[in-house]
Amino acid sequence: MEQWLKDDERLDYLLAEDLRIIQSPSVFSFSLDAVLLSRFTYVPIKRGKMVDLCTGNGAIPLFLSARTSAEIIGIELQERLADMATRSIAYNKLSEQITIRLGDVKGIATQIGSEKYDVVTCNPPYFPAHEASERNLKEHLAIARHEIHLTLEEAVISASELLKQGGKAAFVHRPGRLLDIVTAMRANRLEPKRIRFVYPKEGKEANTLLIEAIKDGKPDLKILPPLYVYGVDGQYTEEVKEMLYGKE
Amino acid sequence: MEQWLKDDERLDYLLAEDLRIIQSPSVFSFSLDAVLLSRFTYVPIKRGKMVDLCTGNGAIPLFLSARTSAEIIGIELQERLADMATRSIAYNKLSEQITIRLGDVKGIATQIGSEKYDVVTCNPPYFPAHEASERNLKEHLAIARHEIHLTLEEAVISASELLKQGGKAAFVHRPGRLLDIVTAMRANRLEPKRIRFVYPKEGKEANTLLIEAIKDGKPDLKILPPLYVYGVDGQYTEEVKEMLYGKE
Repeated sequence: MEQWLKDDERLDYLLAEDLRIIQSPSVFSFSLDAVLLSRFTYVPIKRGKMVDLCTGNGAIPLFLSARTSAEIIGIELQERLADMATRSIAYNKLSEQITIRLGDVKGIATQIGSEKYDVVTCNPPYFPAHEASERNLKEHLAIARHEIHLTLEEAVISASELLKQGGKAAFVHRPGRLLDIVTAMRANRLEPKRIRFVYPKEGKEANTLLIEAIKDGKPDLKILPPLYVYGVDGQYTEEVKEMLYGKE
Repeated sequence: MEQWLKDDERLDYLLAEDLRIIQSPSVFSFSLDAVLLSRFTYVPIKRGKMVDLCTGNGAIPLFLSARTSAEIIGIELQERLADMATRSIAYNKLSEQITIRLGDVKGIATQIGSEKYDVVTCNPPYFPAHEASERNLKEHLAIARHEIHLTLEEAVISASELLKQGGKAAFVHRPGRLLDIVTAMRANRLEPKRIRFVYPKEGKEANTLLIEAIKDGKPDLKILPPLYVYGVDGQYTEEVKEMLYGKE
């Protein structure tokens, strides 16, 4: 086991998928949002090409590999995270299907090809750069969480450049950015078609937004049923349990 | 009683409010959406000035009168509906508080005053004009339901013109128009702050959108808990029952 791990890393289970993922609490751990996005997005079942922007330690490509045989490229700016992702993929013997590419999401289509992908997923940094303190600016976590190297609009532009006509872009973000994300999408040929709001529990405001757009799609937005994370008993709801641990 | 009614009109109860409203099935009847909007919108409790655009037979001003002592002006283009609204208000002895004005919502601020209102509500025609058949174009119902004389953007512009800085605009519409309404609002100094989606029942897509914006407000959108109209038993949920019939 140890040959796969560095420093304070550990090998965690992706429970529902029977996969393992290398994580480090001091660098980055995937969140429930990655799980939600992996389940929300459309995937081609057999063939196709997908890109996951801001892939971090590769959680989304790993989750997606359980749903599709399509080729998946994960893009990550931070060397340490890209390295963790690459080792996780090798550990799971998925290197044929998933490739991790170290690089900037901005302009990535000029590197890996424009208008040739069927699906782009993205769990981008959520917080404005100005909310990151000076002290944190260079830290792995700050880069993953704040729009220091990539703004929401830049992520949307890259998604649009990568996608074929009719291809789908799926993002997870905070509801407070709904207007920014739909404005950026429409300005870049991505027509929002499906939105699902995620609520921590009944009676609370939504804290997560899942949105899927189609490149050059016709306007026809659907608001899907809400998803609750916790039930009144404080436990995960059945729907979330199934995403995390699979069907009993 | 008959002195108040014409043709096929009837005098219906607004149950929760202990008020009566003149309705005619062949002309216009208020829908649940008017009830939902009346409960969703912010109201000044004591003083203030409110305008209800596309007021129809005056259901929203009547509902609002149960929540506020503010002055309310209802704007209605159709003479028959404005007349029904005026008679309902007189019947309920609310003519001191509520005034119905026959006229076009477009440019109404030049008639009743710009930047002087605290709240504008609007339950506009929902359907694009092109979906109204030729045969229906002149009918009362078609005008109330289709964007024949008033587009969504025109309604948003009028709301913005009427509102003071910091005033609030509350609209009810279909979720499919979410992107259009937020785009029109932001283009007209109205910053969306609260959205609530209404679902016919659990597991279904939303079929109604409630949205409140603040004139010149700062971006900070909240997605409120979902509202379900019917429970699994096929009956109104407690929350909707209370809106319609009041607390038991």
